[in-house]
Amino acid sequence: MSLEISRPARDMIAAGQLFHQRGWVPATGGNFSARLSSDRMLITASGWHKGELDDSAFLVADLDGAPEDRSRKASYETLLHCQVYRFDESVGSVLHTHSVANTLLSRRYESIRLAGYELLKLLPGIATHDAAVEIPVFENDQDIQRLASRVNDHMKKVAMPAYLIAGHGLYAWGSTVAQARHRVEALEFMFECELRELENKR
Amino acid sequence: MSLEISRPARDMIAAGQLFHQRGWVPATGGNFSARLSSDRMLITASGWHKGELDDSAFLVADLDGAPEDRSRKASYETLLHCQVYRFDESVGSVLHTHSVANTLLSRRYESIRLAGYELLKLLPGIATHDAAVEIPVFENDQDIQRLASRVNDHMKKVAMPAYLIAGHGLYAWGSTVAQARHRVEALEFMFECELRELENKR
Amino acid sequence: MSLEISRPARDMIAAGQLFHQRGWVPATGGNFSARLSSDRMLITASGWHKGELDDSAFLVADLDGAPEDRSRKASYETLLHCQVYRFDESVGSVLHTHSVANTLLSRRYESIRLAGYELLKLLPGIATHDAAVEIPVFENDQDIQRLASRVNDHMKKVAMPAYLIAGHGLYAWGSTVAQARHRVEALEFMFECELRELENKR
Amino acid sequence: MSLEISRPARDMIAAGQLFHQRGWVPATGGNFSARLSSDRMLITASGWHKGELDDSAFLVADLDGAPEDRSRKASYETLLHCQVYRFDESVGSVLHTHSVANTLLSRRYESIRLAGYELLKLLPGIATHDAAVEIPVFENDQDIQRLASRVNDHMKKVAMPAYLIAGHGLYAWGSTVAQARHRVEALEFMFECELRELENKR
Repeated sequence: MSLEISRPARDMIAAGQLFHQRGWVPATGGNFSARLSSDRMLITASGWHKGELDDSAFLVADLDGAPEDRSRKASYETLLHCQVYRFDESVGSVLHTHSVANTLLSRRYESIRLAGYELLKLLPGIATHDAAVEIPVFENDQDIQRLASRVNDHMKKVAMPAYLIAGHGLYAWGSTVAQARHRVEALEFMFECELRELENKR
Repeated sequence: MSLEISRPARDMIAAGQLFHQRGWVPATGGNFSARLSSDRMLITASGWHKGELDDSAFLVADLDGAPEDRSRKASYETLLHCQVYRFDESVGSVLHTHSVANTLLSRRYESIRLAGYELLKLLPGIATHDAAVEIPVFENDQDIQRLASRVNDHMKKVAMPAYLIAGHGLYAWGSTVAQARHRVEALEFMFECELRELENKR
Repeated sequence: MSLEISRPARDMIAAGQLFHQRGWVPATGGNFSARLSSDRMLITASGWHKGELDDSAFLVADLDGAPEDRSRKASYETLLHCQVYRFDESVGSVLHTHSVANTLLSRRYESIRLAGYELLKLLPGIATHDAAVEIPVFENDQDIQRLASRVNDHMKKVAMPAYLIAGHGLYAWGSTVAQARHRVEALEFMFECELRELENKR
Repeated sequence: MSLEISRPARDMIAAGQLFHQRGWVPATGGNFSARLSSDRMLITASGWHKGELDDSAFLVADLDGAPEDRSRKASYETLLHCQVYRFDESVGSVLHTHSVANTLLSRRYESIRLAGYELLKLLPGIATHDAAVEIPVFENDQDIQRLASRVNDHMKKVAMPAYLIAGHGLYAWGSTVAQARHRVEALEFMFECELRELENKR
């Protein structure tokens, strides 16, 4: 495996093991990618358990989602990764997780407002806890192309540090796999807080 | 240990370690099996902790539950495994788990309806999240033969991707140990969601 | 370390690692022992973290709690272990855990009734899930001798498979460390169920 | 790495791994330090994940927070560590964690009262469970100097075994890293109990 690929692969393998330990990538849920260049990415292949990835679990695809090796099948949500890389060239990695907290909140709300958390500072463009962000929730859709355009249209209107798909999970990103992973950790932490707050507020 | 046996044994040992880490096989709870042929299966022996299995924890039995080595004692729920293999010859593995979520839901409801979860796609014959499945709950019974016939009678009437026994746990299956394990992960995830939803809906 | 001691020590070290992973022995909470003979036991020394035990963490004491090596200090709850060994000579190990669930239930109730759980079969003298047991809760007391006599007086009147100390934790036992550990796992599982049931029943 | 430094570094690395496994140091949350002398400390550098520390993750600073190696950047909350070391010369380690329970309680209350827990005995100056302590909650502030003085002013008036910052986390300490870590474990355990009690009391 080339050096270009082995570093992001190694970081995504480690992220998958952590997310699996947390219960955020059940079964074959979730998928991960890292940008290799202006028009290529490394992305998890279809059907792998994200807690048990190895080097052969990844494939190289262009930003239309076409694998370089046509005999391989990319994760069926590849186009959602492409959308982020194409929308923002500073994005170096996109990670999708599937936790109990993000599933329940995304089934209940059309948008999640996060305010007053120190961990907000992990999100892009936020320098203080004394801020609020809205994480939009998109309706789930098996037509990924259509879902990707809906996300894209919304991103053009409103800046977002991440988004949720109802009953399906979180998409978050960063300039590196490490930064994207830290944002996933911060967001999942705040989602768990929001869910338990809800259990208390009733 | 023959190659025929070592592969499914290895996969069940790994599944047991994962389920133990999750708290889904407390004490000696749970049991696992894999089909070896049209009329033989490999199944966990009685009394083992499912998080601490090794090759000697399994025995070969026929689909009436009789061990090939009559000196060994199969898990006392062996007949529930036999029922599934005999009912559907495409089933290659049956896994039984015992989680807090499946215990509480199975004590409370006569059937669990799962709808709107992306993970439903892991279950047999479901291609979209926009579906609903019913997981039946059977009353617990120390007479396993009688319980197995009740399950069998119900399966003849209604297709089910898995079932619960009240206060006792989940039975799920697949064509391989890996697929059965992924379905257990998906179902336990949705059960945990349902239980927390319940805590929120009150 | 003699063979007589190394086997139970090894089993208690492993039990401690599991209980720590579960969060059942926070800080220096919990303590473990195993009977060596009719009048001697191996017990955890004072002040050790139960998830980080090694061979030097144990000492030999008589059933009055006096260490053979008078320079060592036994766990300050040693007399509670002595009480169980003296009350029932079939007991080979006593394990004390300190979980969130057993702490909250023991602060709230004077006795915990467990019924309809398959895991009840792990407890002494129960052959079916269709049974109920009462786990008594004793008021906490820094005078361990007085607490031990209160437990002893109650045991003479009522059989119990285990007991709780309010805000302090669970004492459970078995003929071996393995059996005692399985009973702890079963009881902690049922306590967690009871606590979440409570959250749902409100 | 000198022996003076390698021991506390090793203990903080292990504490970080435990806290990460518990979910108490999400993303780059938390920070740890150990006193090296009357006027020097070893503290985690800025930006590290506290579950993935190695020897290079620490730097030596004086008790004004100035790194000996001016090319390095200390954790931005360094002054909160300095405040504790300067206030109490018996303190040998300060650990800051960021759990769901301490975040939710610190957002909700101005002070957390802990009473009737056996684990209270882990806290300084408490010899029995039959006691109560108040853990003060300070409003979060990105001006760490100002926050540190507010903490210092309060400490002069009221003894406290630890404190919380709203939406941000716990600061606890002890004479050694081990003792500070045990107090964190005990406090996080009691916070989780308080949070679940709250869910039950509603």
